[in-house]
Amino acid sequence: MAAVAVMVARRVARSGILFPYSSPQLWGRAALQPPVLLPTQRRTFSNNKILVELDTSSGVATMKFKSPPVNSLSLDFLTEFCISLEKLENDRACRALIITSAIPRIFSSGLDIMEMFGKSTEHYAEFWRAVQEMWLRLYGSSMVTVAAINGSSPAGGCLIALSCDYRIMVENPKYVIGLNEAQLGIVAPFWFKDTFVNTVGHRVAERSLQLGLLHPVTEAHQIGLVDEVVPEEKLQEKAAAVVAQWLALPDHARQLTKSMMRKAVLDHMLAHREEDIQNFVKFISKDSIQKSLSMYMEMLKKKKS
Amino acid sequence: MAAVAVMVARRVARSGILFPYSSPQLWGRAALQPPVLLPTQRRTFSNNKILVELDTSSGVATMKFKSPPVNSLSLDFLTEFCISLEKLENDRACRALIITSAIPRIFSSGLDIMEMFGKSTEHYAEFWRAVQEMWLRLYGSSMVTVAAINGSSPAGGCLIALSCDYRIMVENPKYVIGLNEAQLGIVAPFWFKDTFVNTVGHRVAERSLQLGLLHPVTEAHQIGLVDEVVPEEKLQEKAAAVVAQWLALPDHARQLTKSMMRKAVLDHMLAHREEDIQNFVKFISKDSIQKSLSMYMEMLKKKKS
Amino acid sequence: MAAVAVMVARRVARSGILFPYSSPQLWGRAALQPPVLLPTQRRTFSNNKILVELDTSSGVATMKFKSPPVNSLSLDFLTEFCISLEKLENDRACRALIITSAIPRIFSSGLDIMEMFGKSTEHYAEFWRAVQEMWLRLYGSSMVTVAAINGSSPAGGCLIALSCDYRIMVENPKYVIGLNEAQLGIVAPFWFKDTFVNTVGHRVAERSLQLGLLHPVTEAHQIGLVDEVVPEEKLQEKAAAVVAQWLALPDHARQLTKSMMRKAVLDHMLAHREEDIQNFVKFISKDSIQKSLSMYMEMLKKKKS
Repeated sequence: MAAVAVMVARRVARSGILFPYSSPQLWGRAALQPPVLLPTQRRTFSNNKILVELDTSSGVATMKFKSPPVNSLSLDFLTEFCISLEKLENDRACRALIITSAIPRIFSSGLDIMEMFGKSTEHYAEFWRAVQEMWLRLYGSSMVTVAAINGSSPAGGCLIALSCDYRIMVENPKYVIGLNEAQLGIVAPFWFKDTFVNTVGHRVAERSLQLGLLHPVTEAHQIGLVDEVVPEEKLQEKAAAVVAQWLALPDHARQLTKSMMRKAVLDHMLAHREEDIQNFVKFISKDSIQKSLSMYMEMLKKKKS
Repeated sequence: MAAVAVMVARRVARSGILFPYSSPQLWGRAALQPPVLLPTQRRTFSNNKILVELDTSSGVATMKFKSPPVNSLSLDFLTEFCISLEKLENDRACRALIITSAIPRIFSSGLDIMEMFGKSTEHYAEFWRAVQEMWLRLYGSSMVTVAAINGSSPAGGCLIALSCDYRIMVENPKYVIGLNEAQLGIVAPFWFKDTFVNTVGHRVAERSLQLGLLHPVTEAHQIGLVDEVVPEEKLQEKAAAVVAQWLALPDHARQLTKSMMRKAVLDHMLAHREEDIQNFVKFISKDSIQKSLSMYMEMLKKKKS
Repeated sequence: MAAVAVMVARRVARSGILFPYSSPQLWGRAALQPPVLLPTQRRTFSNNKILVELDTSSGVATMKFKSPPVNSLSLDFLTEFCISLEKLENDRACRALIITSAIPRIFSSGLDIMEMFGKSTEHYAEFWRAVQEMWLRLYGSSMVTVAAINGSSPAGGCLIALSCDYRIMVENPKYVIGLNEAQLGIVAPFWFKDTFVNTVGHRVAERSLQLGLLHPVTEAHQIGLVDEVVPEEKLQEKAAAVVAQWLALPDHARQLTKSMMRKAVLDHMLAHREEDIQNFVKFISKDSIQKSLSMYMEMLKKKKS
């Protein structure tokens, strides 16, 4: 019955309504230019960290993290990630995004600890602004976003998944997902927490965050941290099917609805963005935290050798 | 143990504490007069759209929607609905309300599309105020309210169910319920969303609203959109049993508790009521939306013939 | 991997970050003095109402309610409870608290009705401030808190359990738990409600509070009101295991995370604390409520004789 209405509504131009959030300091003007439309069916762009393929016939882009060894979120990675998101967001041929990993057994290991150790306060501030920017763009994306989680996804990796519209995870007893910051002696920022609470509810979040839990796939599914669990070989097919279901809706109505659901949490972060950066810089600069990170990295080095 | 306290507390006059919300513009003074108390056991009043029977011995009223073909919520229907609600609210003999449908297979099809097409902005504003008024009265009712959902209940029909204290739905694989506005290219207003989130939680609401899902009965039960599922022939009996359970509580304590739970969402809407009307009028007056509705109605006409 | 970080972080002094909440009016200066550190392995302190044992090697305190017949929360009980909480909070040797009952079949029966009947408004105000203080200290505790619920736990007893980090209840079909205030013709205050909603979600809380439900153990587990159900003989062992799991985390990170999760609800109460006292005093002083409580107590007396 709604088919006609749907077709009409799709003609309404995608307006990027969810994005008053870009940060010129970080990305510069150049990246804001609309891409030149090419007459190809499949468009690919890549950088050191991420591969993006856009199927212009279906409007679905696939983004593959390819930063060995564990897709950690360095400042470079985050910058490339945000530039890729912005390109797709501004590309009228793109309506949906599937995010997955090209590295076996890991989706993303989260924030790169090297960016938080032995650097200047200016560097810490720049790094944290990039983490914020990534979340603002992804949680507030006007595209349909699906996380195809083909490996473990702790901390910042979990945040990426949480920021999508739908989460599908591979059925593998070795894979875990969660916001485990407390395990490292640090604290997830309030907007990680808000995103988590919006997904799994207050009580589950309260316990999981305090214990810094990394949930095995089945448990993650039970608590609603992931929406679906599939065998590895079915992941891409399932992600495509989910995207198709979401794309059957008129973009404009779906985008306005998404904005209505997420606006409060996005606005709350924006209202405290600079304060949040200052808090991070102050916290991470503490001798006790730096010493803790130092010992942690020493341990990692020994483990490798 | 609490029986005595209960009996005493029941003597406290029903004070209609939840209702600073009546809208004189719509209903006029006459409707605000308290009804004359009659010595009858069963009182009936009816209009073109709705039949109301009040059993004065039990204090339970049953309201039956009887507006063919699909109990759509026209301005006339909403006006009669609100007048009926107000009568019962002000009637000291009435403590509970069961809402059901006299039309087979449909509870209510939601807002009448004819009220939103080709009319003046004044008409749109009047219509939207009536939709708001209905929700304010029902979600904020001091009566025990039970939805006995004996048919499909999309969009505004679902809102009526969500605004009650308890939802019982008939076990029929053909019946569906949900806020499917996005399917039609429109967006559920924020107070539909708030009512939905209060019932099923943020994550379920986020997905269901973006996809405009109409949930089959079993699924609706699983996500907490309905509280109970029963065979058609057991519906009235079950509704009566649920009402009896809720009426066993002292009215005053139950009403204050209900108000405490719902006040934030009711107040938020009241604080943005005029703005919400203006937003609706502006949105619905758009050429693109009017064209979309026109094509939708053309399609419905062809389907009928 | 996080083991080293954990060890380092534990050295960070416990700072009692969650407590800007003490109320000098109630507790006086004396109680605020830090306790003298003794070289014992096990420290015990006790009063008429509560027994506390602190194992200084593990950092775990066990608090046993021992106020016959039903551990009701009188002004004296609440005062002793708060003083005990404060002692432990300020004791650097204490990191966790298990709360349980020394009375068979009852955890705590909730607020003492005698404190709410036939007293002066000054007394009502003092009593209510003590109830608030107890919740502020427990819900905002920087210790790991586990409720080992070995008996029924209505109303204020349920609030104590809800204010802990984790709830384990004994598997006994006769034990019930819930906020049943509405059954007595009274209304749970907004901060009872907020604590309940944070645990079981809005919809479950809405129904449970309006019906004043006392949930049997199995049902309490299903709705998330308790986290785990165990046979009576396994209760202490389970509580110890849970505490150990929570203590494996760095105190500082866990405490900051807990504060982040609970701060909004704690702050909201503090901002309305005096108003809440006035509301309680006004409500409980009403003739209708006093008459209701009088009849309730008459009934209890008859039942006993």
